[in-house]
Amino acid sequence: MMTKDDIALAERLADAAGDAIRPFFRAAFSIETKSDDSPVTQADQAAEAAMRRIIEAERPDDGIIGEEYGEKPGSSGRIWVLDPIDGTRSFIVGRPIFGTLIALLAEGWPVLGVIDQPIGRDRWVGAAGRATTLNGLPAKARPCPALDKALLATTSPHLFTDHEAEHFMALVGATGQGPTYGGDCYNYGLLASGHIDIVVESGLKLYDFAALVPVVEGAGGRMCDWAGEPLHAGSKGDVIAAGDPARIDDIVEALSCAH
Amino acid sequence: MMTKDDIALAERLADAAGDAIRPFFRAAFSIETKSDDSPVTQADQAAEAAMRRIIEAERPDDGIIGEEYGEKPGSSGRIWVLDPIDGTRSFIVGRPIFGTLIALLAEGWPVLGVIDQPIGRDRWVGAAGRATTLNGLPAKARPCPALDKALLATTSPHLFTDHEAEHFMALVGATGQGPTYGGDCYNYGLLASGHIDIVVESGLKLYDFAALVPVVEGAGGRMCDWAGEPLHAGSKGDVIAAGDPARIDDIVEALSCAH
Repeated sequence: MMTKDDIALAERLADAAGDAIRPFFRAAFSIETKSDDSPVTQADQAAEAAMRRIIEAERPDDGIIGEEYGEKPGSSGRIWVLDPIDGTRSFIVGRPIFGTLIALLAEGWPVLGVIDQPIGRDRWVGAAGRATTLNGLPAKARPCPALDKALLATTSPHLFTDHEAEHFMALVGATGQGPTYGGDCYNYGLLASGHIDIVVESGLKLYDFAALVPVVEGAGGRMCDWAGEPLHAGSKGDVIAAGDPARIDDIVEALSCAH
Repeated sequence: MMTKDDIALAERLADAAGDAIRPFFRAAFSIETKSDDSPVTQADQAAEAAMRRIIEAERPDDGIIGEEYGEKPGSSGRIWVLDPIDGTRSFIVGRPIFGTLIALLAEGWPVLGVIDQPIGRDRWVGAAGRATTLNGLPAKARPCPALDKALLATTSPHLFTDHEAEHFMALVGATGQGPTYGGDCYNYGLLASGHIDIVVESGLKLYDFAALVPVVEGAGGRMCDWAGEPLHAGSKGDVIAAGDPARIDDIVEALSCAH
């Protein structure tokens, strides 16, 4: 279902996306630029188009789901899921902590994932049955002995619905310190490298979360939805990532409470 | 009061701090490491010690105020103000958006500032009467025609007191979109380069804000406190940075309202 060739292909997709994105990073633009002319939109489209060209040439039977250009059905049971720029806001403000996300689904399950930061050149690669790497070296999530010692990250408190925010704040209360904001997909890479213990988000699309799962799990962590169920193509996009799988039950329990 | 030699010295201080910090970035450490042994503490102390050694050797009459090692009085009317790692949390989680801050005060006024990001190697240098540079090239803040088009950044909503948070949320309401979180001093550099329009924070120490002022103002922006008054050694640490000075009055007015 997934081979070394697929991993090599995913890396070439990330190379192509990075080449397309870099010229637009920190490009000057007026605040009044229309959103469909903005550097981030141009970079997003150029990067996804470059990746789709490669997949269509080399894996004509595979499906594609991309953030910019939608779905192309396939016949192989395999789908490439692409988010050329996850962390649009970071890109816009010039912070090198956005990422290109590339996943391969086999029968709906994410079996291969790449998180690529093309400015700082951090690339996490995870695949079922293999150890996750950061720039070719093993990445390892860290143990977290108790929830009240956990370092928790999420992109923004404003991305939760009111109801979800109450549950999130219950989890914040169970950890020992305030959450770290910002970061998007980059947080999951840093969790896979043992610098963050928990990431919790909601409202993610398939292309936002599919690539994260193999990266986190291949580093010894665990991902699931807010009910503790594994993530697949049909999940609704509320996600938990824990560097230490032993903390998943505590996180699910804390999230189920609300003040 | 401030010469080209001072600018060159400030750059050498930043070089020394970066050399001291880089080995500790993303160093593996247990979540239970005592805070005074942690990589961030070691990096903070090593970087400030390296900078102080240079200043004491080359500017023995100047005072020094540092985040880690406190105040050394001087006799010249000039004080070097040092924050080796601004953005501790970013450093801890492995995000390359923290910074080393170096300022020179003349009779209490910030006349020279450096914001240095030693991993991505972004260095903003600002000095009274000169144009701000990013890595040697001119940095320019951008026009912002109206508050409701402004891109607003702040490090965390949890850094405001309850009362300040109300005022901050009034400003958020006056801008067109949610604020961008995270970033610390890096946000002010990005504002000086025309990617962010407004940064508003409170509770900053002198070593958190002194270096920012010459960087922002030399790029055509403006900094002041929440009452619109200029920032100096006696300011209490509530700060506004605007890329477009024409928006300062609007920001001060919006902040003075509370829902």
